[in-house]
Amino acid sequence: MTAVDPPGLLVEGAREVVTMAGGIRRGSGQGEAAVLAASDADLAVACWQGRVILAGRRGDVTRRLAADGLDPDDLTRFAHLDARGGTVTPGLIDPHTHLVFAGTREREIELRRQGASYLEILAAGGGILSTVAATRAASVDELVAGGRRWLVEMLGHGATTVEAKSGYGLERDTELRQLDAIGRLDAECPVELVPTFLGAHAVAPEFRGRPDAADAYVRDVIDVQLPAVAAQGIARFCDVFCEEGVFTADQSRRVLAAGAGLGLVPRLHADELRPSGGAELAAELGAAAADHLGVPSPAGIDALARAAGRVTPVVATLLPATSLFLKGEAYGPARALIDRGVPLALGTDFNPGTSPAPNLQLVLSLAVLRMGLTAAEALAGVTINAAHALRLGDSHGAIEPGRQADLAIWDAPTHAQIPYWLGANLVRAVVKRGRVVRAGAPV
Amino acid sequence: MTAVDPPGLLVEGAREVVTMAGGIRRGSGQGEAAVLAASDADLAVACWQGRVILAGRRGDVTRRLAADGLDPDDLTRFAHLDARGGTVTPGLIDPHTHLVFAGTREREIELRRQGASYLEILAAGGGILSTVAATRAASVDELVAGGRRWLVEMLGHGATTVEAKSGYGLERDTELRQLDAIGRLDAECPVELVPTFLGAHAVAPEFRGRPDAADAYVRDVIDVQLPAVAAQGIARFCDVFCEEGVFTADQSRRVLAAGAGLGLVPRLHADELRPSGGAELAAELGAAAADHLGVPSPAGIDALARAAGRVTPVVATLLPATSLFLKGEAYGPARALIDRGVPLALGTDFNPGTSPAPNLQLVLSLAVLRMGLTAAEALAGVTINAAHALRLGDSHGAIEPGRQADLAIWDAPTHAQIPYWLGANLVRAVVKRGRVVRAGAPV
Repeated sequence: MTAVDPPGLLVEGAREVVTMAGGIRRGSGQGEAAVLAASDADLAVACWQGRVILAGRRGDVTRRLAADGLDPDDLTRFAHLDARGGTVTPGLIDPHTHLVFAGTREREIELRRQGASYLEILAAGGGILSTVAATRAASVDELVAGGRRWLVEMLGHGATTVEAKSGYGLERDTELRQLDAIGRLDAECPVELVPTFLGAHAVAPEFRGRPDAADAYVRDVIDVQLPAVAAQGIARFCDVFCEEGVFTADQSRRVLAAGAGLGLVPRLHADELRPSGGAELAAELGAAAADHLGVPSPAGIDALARAAGRVTPVVATLLPATSLFLKGEAYGPARALIDRGVPLALGTDFNPGTSPAPNLQLVLSLAVLRMGLTAAEALAGVTINAAHALRLGDSHGAIEPGRQADLAIWDAPTHAQIPYWLGANLVRAVVKRGRVVRAGAPV
Repeated sequence: MTAVDPPGLLVEGAREVVTMAGGIRRGSGQGEAAVLAASDADLAVACWQGRVILAGRRGDVTRRLAADGLDPDDLTRFAHLDARGGTVTPGLIDPHTHLVFAGTREREIELRRQGASYLEILAAGGGILSTVAATRAASVDELVAGGRRWLVEMLGHGATTVEAKSGYGLERDTELRQLDAIGRLDAECPVELVPTFLGAHAVAPEFRGRPDAADAYVRDVIDVQLPAVAAQGIARFCDVFCEEGVFTADQSRRVLAAGAGLGLVPRLHADELRPSGGAELAAELGAAAADHLGVPSPAGIDALARAAGRVTPVVATLLPATSLFLKGEAYGPARALIDRGVPLALGTDFNPGTSPAPNLQLVLSLAVLRMGLTAAEALAGVTINAAHALRLGDSHGAIEPGRQADLAIWDAPTHAQIPYWLGANLVRAVVKRGRVVRAGAPV
């Protein structure tokens, strides 16, 4: 971006604009995408100084601009982006990633194929502790370089805002270094990052083997890591892996309460593999989101349903790429959650062990093909509801006057085709804060 | 491409070159990818006038060039392509697509979600006959434009050779128009197309309702369509959908025998949904390939295993994107086929109804994650074995001296990572016939 960029942007020529106007989606509203459609491909979205002014028919939009004293044909004031008969949606929001890490774990696919268990993979030097070892050994520059590569991939597939967690340090200094890398990437890249502290991702290797290992490590997270993270001032959320065999609901509650006391909003990895009280805890704490939810208990679903009536509900974030990658992992009770009024979001869970999938378009396809969502329900999960899962629901995730102008322009005449072209990259341009940050087909 | 392109190309800086040298892969050989590896990223591939000269360490390659009187540093004679610590493989070959069609069928996802059966979808105006109606109504220019769009997507994901079928006309003139479109795309695009006549894709609507509908339509295919297709001179293969409820093995045999009599090599859609004698028929006829094979009978696997000992075996082509798209469709007995010595290939089955997936990288991931193949086994399926499935096994699908210089350059230090980064596009450059036809990351 150069200093001569005009302050305005007019996206024009769209057949559909999926505005997602109207706030968080839940229940039957999950599938109401607030779509503008024009078979003559005459729709436009006007942006000014990074914010949306108006979406609608081009004539209506330009009249409104004229009333504000703005001439969209003045090229010193307005850039133009041709949406070419396609669809415009809010820029995609990925509310759950482990973006910053070192090392890769492709070898574990082969070990799993040969029938190796989780513990055997750990014993073979794999599993999360191998990522922890590699990440501890990496410099912040190396972490930034790795994250940059995948952010480019995410942006290319339509993401404009991405949550990113620490959690591969499991000790203070590396956790801080991961968060530092996330902060630097946010400053450097067109994609906006939302940093989360996940010290309680697993019990650190130094603590393993002790009878009180998890409790002792939780004390380290609370007494040593969290104060330093709060002082660093990058993380906005505190996350914990609440799961049988990792951290109990009680341990998770201690971590999240301590984080909240330092200003970090709670969010959880909940009930990924077994019902572990995570959904219940998320509702109890008023967490921003409960993520994974492969197999929440009926009581957990009840708790999320009760919390769904609040002004600020807990967003249920399902992660279908992980289910595809880990053959046999449940896709989660998406329809039951929608039917109970729980707002649903979707994320990649991008990480080197269980979801090396930096592509929200694939997540949309899986949600439609494997979880039984409609295209509109799935799109709400990676736009307005994902924004709410990151507590950005008032400023991000919809094309409404005054909101941040984050847009994805798709080479598809209707949003219904976005999950349909499986594995195709339909994104033809991406706009972040009113600026075109990616344009043109790759070939 | 301009006239000033030098005749030579030196790809340099690779950590791995997956040569696939050594011919068709079967049995334990399916996973032998003939990989050159250099931790100092010093590997090179030299091409001259569209053919591979040599792959190896850069010093060895340049010495060999010098011995032939060629100076790779003479930029009038050699273009250079930096593989940047990545991996070079043969350009990917997609041995099963329905590239050329009109209309889209995203609405059927929603109908299936609501529990509609195949017949109910047909009654609602969906299914293959809706694609037939749209394709019949399309001009050849429209068919070319549609195919071009998806060829660009396929190329961007690493494909350099793509099989493409007719079969949405179901009457002579539209079948010819589809083949004409395939021929024009082959002439116009950097991707090489291999045309197949698939008049026996379904019973044409005009014949339906008659008690002898399938037999009568088969006579039309044999007496009316095939002679015209042969006279047109574009198609190289004749294909048929041999499946219970579509065409019987006996009907399929009649079509393929008639095609063979006109010089069209037989290939089959076999045993996709039920054991239907397709694998047996492929072996009996010495077909180039038996495709789908979701549920071949034990006798069918036996027949392919016996045919696997021939100089020209029948290649079993599995299509996992279709299985993902049609929840519940079997991925096919990949390991059993390999264990019985049957050479395995993989394709996208790209089509608007059951696999709108123009991405062989996703197919590789599914083969590894869902069919239990190793990365090397899967790569053989989209390179040398796919070449054999298209009877191009002597000239395509491997990086060996004298073969056509079709290459994919990957942003991955080892081929084992290609299926691992699920949904990422790792292709950074594509070379066809020794020319760089796609270069640079999309962002």
